[in-house]
Amino acid sequence: MRIASFLHNDSQTYGVVTQAGVHPVTGDFAKRYPSLRAVLEAGQLDALAQNCAAQAISPSDLDLLPPIPAPSKILCVGLNYRKPYPVAGKTLEADNIVIFGRHDDTLVGHASPLELPTDEAAQSFDFEGEIVAIIGKACRHASEADALSHVAGYSCMNEGSVRGWQKHSIHAGKNFFASGAWGPYLTTPDEAGAVDAMQLVTRVNGEVMQQATGADMIYPLSKLIAYLSHMTWLNPGDVIATGSPDGTGGSRTPPAFLKTGDVVEVEVSTLGVLRNQVTAPPRA
Amino acid sequence: MRIASFLHNDSQTYGVVTQAGVHPVTGDFAKRYPSLRAVLEAGQLDALAQNCAAQAISPSDLDLLPPIPAPSKILCVGLNYRKPYPVAGKTLEADNIVIFGRHDDTLVGHASPLELPTDEAAQSFDFEGEIVAIIGKACRHASEADALSHVAGYSCMNEGSVRGWQKHSIHAGKNFFASGAWGPYLTTPDEAGAVDAMQLVTRVNGEVMQQATGADMIYPLSKLIAYLSHMTWLNPGDVIATGSPDGTGGSRTPPAFLKTGDVVEVEVSTLGVLRNQVTAPPRA
Repeated sequence: MRIASFLHNDSQTYGVVTQAGVHPVTGDFAKRYPSLRAVLEAGQLDALAQNCAAQAISPSDLDLLPPIPAPSKILCVGLNYRKPYPVAGKTLEADNIVIFGRHDDTLVGHASPLELPTDEAAQSFDFEGEIVAIIGKACRHASEADALSHVAGYSCMNEGSVRGWQKHSIHAGKNFFASGAWGPYLTTPDEAGAVDAMQLVTRVNGEVMQQATGADMIYPLSKLIAYLSHMTWLNPGDVIATGSPDGTGGSRTPPAFLKTGDVVEVEVSTLGVLRNQVTAPPRA
Repeated sequence: MRIASFLHNDSQTYGVVTQAGVHPVTGDFAKRYPSLRAVLEAGQLDALAQNCAAQAISPSDLDLLPPIPAPSKILCVGLNYRKPYPVAGKTLEADNIVIFGRHDDTLVGHASPLELPTDEAAQSFDFEGEIVAIIGKACRHASEADALSHVAGYSCMNEGSVRGWQKHSIHAGKNFFASGAWGPYLTTPDEAGAVDAMQLVTRVNGEVMQQATGADMIYPLSKLIAYLSHMTWLNPGDVIATGSPDGTGGSRTPPAFLKTGDVVEVEVSTLGVLRNQVTAPPRA
């Protein structure tokens, strides 16, 4: 099952995605659970499909939002793919899991504009294609063996970054307003298949920039969930971004940073294509 | 004016603090603005006092929450005080503002228990007394000159940290569940006075561990707000923690990390005393 959150006639709702479009949630179920996050919190995901309209809304008549528009936590993992570096073919690998956080308004939904930062920050605006997991059932101190049972589904992310400010601190480089995106929708595990088998491709203006599979991750999702849930509660709707492979703009010679008009696509084989265009900032 | 958010008879509300206790918000105002954050978003802070009950609730009959229980962002500043280090008296100073983020459930309110982490993380649980500012009016690209006009008030924070996990990544060390606290309430700028004049003291079990004034900050609040708002929107209720001075447990020889039963107090001269006791984790 694929589930999208979206705006339609100025109101925010969600529904099941089919070839026909998005079938919006209806009736009492829609009143009781005003968001996909509320559905997950209530453990009602299995009942969603039977509470959606038979008639689909055409994709051209709605604006997709991030699958969970306001998660309680967006946790991102760094350095989780082996990346060749120009110095003697050395591979950078962390001795432990490395994490950082993003605020939800740093990420837009599919097809919404990415905002080029202003001033000198515009000179190092970069993309990062990633596979993300969405938590379904709350957990703390999850074991690796049990970890994946807490996942409601998967999605794609462009974990957009401002490399100049990342040198100040990782949080600064990773938290520019509307600098990234995630979506287009949540795909449940039965349809998403195993993370190891997912094929991740990032394209800029149609050119392939990053290519990897989930099996290339240094720390698999089960280890990430065990680690993160040792630190804190993972709640329904929380997002875990699993890291980005080699090939980002800043790692290239010469660097290939994003500029106004560029189109970034993050495609994961079983999760769809997330596509966003870079626009000039309101104050440029 | 001092404003507290609190639980009373199992429901969450807020009100004005006086010597008598907390005067809860009432009537239509309370219905229209169910939280202090909603009051700030609506620009209605000046109308709050006249919409609170004449009769105060005794502090013993309520549980204080963080002044803004669910802010959209908690942004923390690192390395913002000059700290002497044992090596040749060298002072560590960053070339730029350094930031990181905290998720809201890492911080409890005044008098709520701090949760000692489990396993090896329990061995490096540390305190950090800080002055925090709360945003009142949304801003982006604020100038330094204009920055403080966006502040609704100030409060105290124990920006509790797990040093062992901070070596993995700053986000990991700073985001253990219920590892810190902020409060006891929001004090408006007229009553709080200038940040430079604020006296910050941290005590553990009554012993003074940290002592500084707001004037000791390397980057003053106006610069922090200008920097942060260049990156993203600062929204009503957002929290900016301005950094912690010398004297934390981990900087001492031998280290003085926290253990079950310890009482941490963060006092800021015009902002009150934030007091919390460390409890054993539920799974110890």
